[in-house]
Amino acid sequence: MTPMDLRGVFAPIPTPFDRNDQLDESRLRSACARWAASSLRGLVVLGSTGEAVLLDEDESDRVVAVAREIWPAGRPFIVGTGRESTAATILATRRAGALGADAVLVRTPGFYKSQMNTDVFVRHYTSVADASPVPVLLDNFTAVTGVNLPPAAVTKLAAHPNIVGVKESSGDVAQIADFVKGSRAGFNVLAGSSTTFYSALGVGAVGGVLALSCVLPDACVRVFELTRAGNHAQASALQMRLMPIAKLVGSMHGIAGLKASLKLVGCDVGGPRSPLAPVSDATVAVLREALVSFEEVALV
Amino acid sequence: MTPMDLRGVFAPIPTPFDRNDQLDESRLRSACARWAASSLRGLVVLGSTGEAVLLDEDESDRVVAVAREIWPAGRPFIVGTGRESTAATILATRRAGALGADAVLVRTPGFYKSQMNTDVFVRHYTSVADASPVPVLLDNFTAVTGVNLPPAAVTKLAAHPNIVGVKESSGDVAQIADFVKGSRAGFNVLAGSSTTFYSALGVGAVGGVLALSCVLPDACVRVFELTRAGNHAQASALQMRLMPIAKLVGSMHGIAGLKASLKLVGCDVGGPRSPLAPVSDATVAVLREALVSFEEVALV
Amino acid sequence: MTPMDLRGVFAPIPTPFDRNDQLDESRLRSACARWAASSLRGLVVLGSTGEAVLLDEDESDRVVAVAREIWPAGRPFIVGTGRESTAATILATRRAGALGADAVLVRTPGFYKSQMNTDVFVRHYTSVADASPVPVLLDNFTAVTGVNLPPAAVTKLAAHPNIVGVKESSGDVAQIADFVKGSRAGFNVLAGSSTTFYSALGVGAVGGVLALSCVLPDACVRVFELTRAGNHAQASALQMRLMPIAKLVGSMHGIAGLKASLKLVGCDVGGPRSPLAPVSDATVAVLREALVSFEEVALV
Amino acid sequence: MTPMDLRGVFAPIPTPFDRNDQLDESRLRSACARWAASSLRGLVVLGSTGEAVLLDEDESDRVVAVAREIWPAGRPFIVGTGRESTAATILATRRAGALGADAVLVRTPGFYKSQMNTDVFVRHYTSVADASPVPVLLDNFTAVTGVNLPPAAVTKLAAHPNIVGVKESSGDVAQIADFVKGSRAGFNVLAGSSTTFYSALGVGAVGGVLALSCVLPDACVRVFELTRAGNHAQASALQMRLMPIAKLVGSMHGIAGLKASLKLVGCDVGGPRSPLAPVSDATVAVLREALVSFEEVALV
Repeated sequence: MTPMDLRGVFAPIPTPFDRNDQLDESRLRSACARWAASSLRGLVVLGSTGEAVLLDEDESDRVVAVAREIWPAGRPFIVGTGRESTAATILATRRAGALGADAVLVRTPGFYKSQMNTDVFVRHYTSVADASPVPVLLDNFTAVTGVNLPPAAVTKLAAHPNIVGVKESSGDVAQIADFVKGSRAGFNVLAGSSTTFYSALGVGAVGGVLALSCVLPDACVRVFELTRAGNHAQASALQMRLMPIAKLVGSMHGIAGLKASLKLVGCDVGGPRSPLAPVSDATVAVLREALVSFEEVALV
Repeated sequence: MTPMDLRGVFAPIPTPFDRNDQLDESRLRSACARWAASSLRGLVVLGSTGEAVLLDEDESDRVVAVAREIWPAGRPFIVGTGRESTAATILATRRAGALGADAVLVRTPGFYKSQMNTDVFVRHYTSVADASPVPVLLDNFTAVTGVNLPPAAVTKLAAHPNIVGVKESSGDVAQIADFVKGSRAGFNVLAGSSTTFYSALGVGAVGGVLALSCVLPDACVRVFELTRAGNHAQASALQMRLMPIAKLVGSMHGIAGLKASLKLVGCDVGGPRSPLAPVSDATVAVLREALVSFEEVALV
Repeated sequence: MTPMDLRGVFAPIPTPFDRNDQLDESRLRSACARWAASSLRGLVVLGSTGEAVLLDEDESDRVVAVAREIWPAGRPFIVGTGRESTAATILATRRAGALGADAVLVRTPGFYKSQMNTDVFVRHYTSVADASPVPVLLDNFTAVTGVNLPPAAVTKLAAHPNIVGVKESSGDVAQIADFVKGSRAGFNVLAGSSTTFYSALGVGAVGGVLALSCVLPDACVRVFELTRAGNHAQASALQMRLMPIAKLVGSMHGIAGLKASLKLVGCDVGGPRSPLAPVSDATVAVLREALVSFEEVALV
Repeated sequence: MTPMDLRGVFAPIPTPFDRNDQLDESRLRSACARWAASSLRGLVVLGSTGEAVLLDEDESDRVVAVAREIWPAGRPFIVGTGRESTAATILATRRAGALGADAVLVRTPGFYKSQMNTDVFVRHYTSVADASPVPVLLDNFTAVTGVNLPPAAVTKLAAHPNIVGVKESSGDVAQIADFVKGSRAGFNVLAGSSTTFYSALGVGAVGGVLALSCVLPDACVRVFELTRAGNHAQASALQMRLMPIAKLVGSMHGIAGLKASLKLVGCDVGGPRSPLAPVSDATVAVLREALVSFEEVALV
């Protein structure tokens, strides 16, 4: 297989629900069209930000099908297919491939934390990559899984011809550097934390899968472009201006915060699915304030 | 509804697989018959120890149906039905009820760790308990979920007429005491950690859901009976003798260790499902040694 | 050397300060006389609860000398002498011995957390015990040190003729049981957490070093005596009644909470030393309420 | 007071001991002369890397006096003076000032972890800064203290006229950015982790206090100079080449690893003080290999 180039900014999109907590395909179409009109390089559906663990398999397939229909060919369309069991991950991966995914993003299993180690990860991902019809991206999201994918595992897995990259979702820039250093040229190390995107690019990340980019796609892309152009002072300054929103939308208020922010910028994707709860009015006010402070956003 | 009495020892049974990693109904029948012949009070199927997160919904239903068929009426038959979404938990709970569960054990959601708090847990469990055709048990298993169900949440939920108890799976005896102190008489606080079972009984737990009791059911029941009879010296001494095996079977080697131990005592339920890996031969030797040291087990 | 018997309840006393944050010898005398009039087995001065890390070496010696003078011979008088360096620990230990300590309690070093392991602990404590003129007690207080003294280290050190016991300050009853199981008969395993004192006694602890016993010495001793007499139902019930105060005085409000509680029961030892801050009036009210609820305390 | 400019690289020097674990003033002189001959901006003595917690007050003063004598005026000479008590910190700070310190670096107290919060930190540092004859730097070293200095505390303290900066010792680049964003221009945010030095500079850190710079001062300064000159590609490439040694010398092998590395490059400062243990021969071989791979070092 030929290597895949994933340079740029990818939006890990939330899954829209209607008032009855049901998948809202219409809102999904509108939102995808909006993101398609931005400078985003690509889309990630059914990631952790997509509430994938709150969807059943049929809903998952519908999300993929609807988004794929809207999203333009030629810009990477990536589907999250991680499950706790290797077999279920393979099934989801094959279905994603059949539905038009350009690549899959596979979160580490993490339920049985004490039993997860380099060997287990290497076996799991090798099985998935062997069986996958499309290239595979590793996904290390310690804040939700409670486990860490060790650099040694990434180094081994980067040698697999069907594993084309890794997303590191913590803000641990040293680990991103470790992943870069331990993998072959052309292996795509992607930042998963909006607060340290500029820093990640500085140590070899080729792009990012950034929740913030669902709300402010062009600003995130500008950080990327400025850095690529060697304009570090402006890139860093823009990153610093984005910091407060990145924190609010990301770790602090989670998916509910992201969905509330999207509504503020005119993209209503509903609220999160239960047991997740919408943010309070006070939090909406804080988000509004942060977005207004950022200046370039006209709020609805 | 009338209160449910869950005094005694419950085995959270592993799910047997065959050589092809498929559900092995025949082994499940044999194993259930073996447990039915013991002094165990009841059974928990599809708990964390049952690799529930590695099964699909159809497999889950088959496990329930097969085990239910073997397990004698009159001894509590409990089914794990926790899912990350409230709606999926309710669906699984209703199916378990329809398949003959006497109660359901519902693990806290935990994927979106930073968003879980007392309010979220209270809303989630209230929805589930309102919808459930059978009594509900809360399940706090921090080692796998990465979140803690606060005593304040348990106190509120213990007032719900369809919530009959809580399993605390850590060895945190102070928190078990908190749960007991904060709930009404008749609310069943169950220990989930084999290493501190005797201690939990001493602060008001009425029983235990103990992985160790899959392997050594009668010894675990004896700890319970000795304590209930006020024979603390013997109960404590037996608990101390069980400690090394409890540690090996539980946290140290996880489900693979439990399955290997079961094979050693003549109950072959196969290995764990991938990505979980079987224990090494060296570990089997350690498990054998521990079981032999315990003296009363004739190994195969 | 002959073995030392440390059965019973020990108060880890706070160090009294005056309004100028200076050591208040007069209050120390009064408080020690009060504790001497109780049924406490012994005293621990300069432990973590004694703000030892906030005192200089001269102040430390004065605390030992003054308390020793008041405390009756024949009831164990134990001095905390742990320092980060082995040499400084030995110096403090020798001074304590010279000032009349019956034994020393030596907290694990913990500053360089990543470098602490079983070998380091064994070497450290062996050097200290070799040099100490009096018996040595190990002190594992993970909540302040950030490191854990592994059971394997305790097992090795329990074989040293001048190491007579260990205090486990967390509420981890399973680890207490491990320490008991791994050490020779006569080795004194002491509970350091008031919330699980009864449970610790049930798995082989011979006594406790309990912050709560500074405030309610006789109630703590009663838990001990009831358990020793095999009266488990009453012991457990009393422990449950003590739980709320134990939590407030211990982990929740720290030394400031302990000192405020002591003032409420008529034993004014001043406030904590800076940077520690006194508790708020609201917290004092909560402490008062908890003490009054316990019923047998006449508050000042 | 006038603001202090701390741009550049500072070496947090280890304290040399002789074979009897005693302070070795001769080695200290030689080592300081070596560092003075490098392009280091300044020196930090008695930091965590200086084993300050393993020294008594007299030894501490001797280290300051000897190093001060060698270190050239005009290049910042900073002394670590953090103690657990506010009063002891002030005493140490005054002594350091009297002995010629240009500034003091004050580690957060951290022993009573559960009681440390923004208010406590603000009061502690305000007292110290009010009393200090020289400018004060905050020091947040979570890996040893187990507590975090919150950005809110730094923002408040940055307004104090005698507090001139903060060292953030973790590799948390997002927190460094927070510190920068929350403080006035001219407030010196210094990186304390060698593995993310380049990244920290990119988000506004003005320099670093880097253990690695004791061993490879000129390479660390080059990362700084290249970044300052806008030569990001070379700066990042050099940082990546330094990564393996940075990890070995820093977190992985601690002070023992640092001292072994220094011996390899011809600067023998002895081993660490007990209970810290020297690294094994195998680790020395790994360190040698890493240094040789870096190419520009001629090993002894």
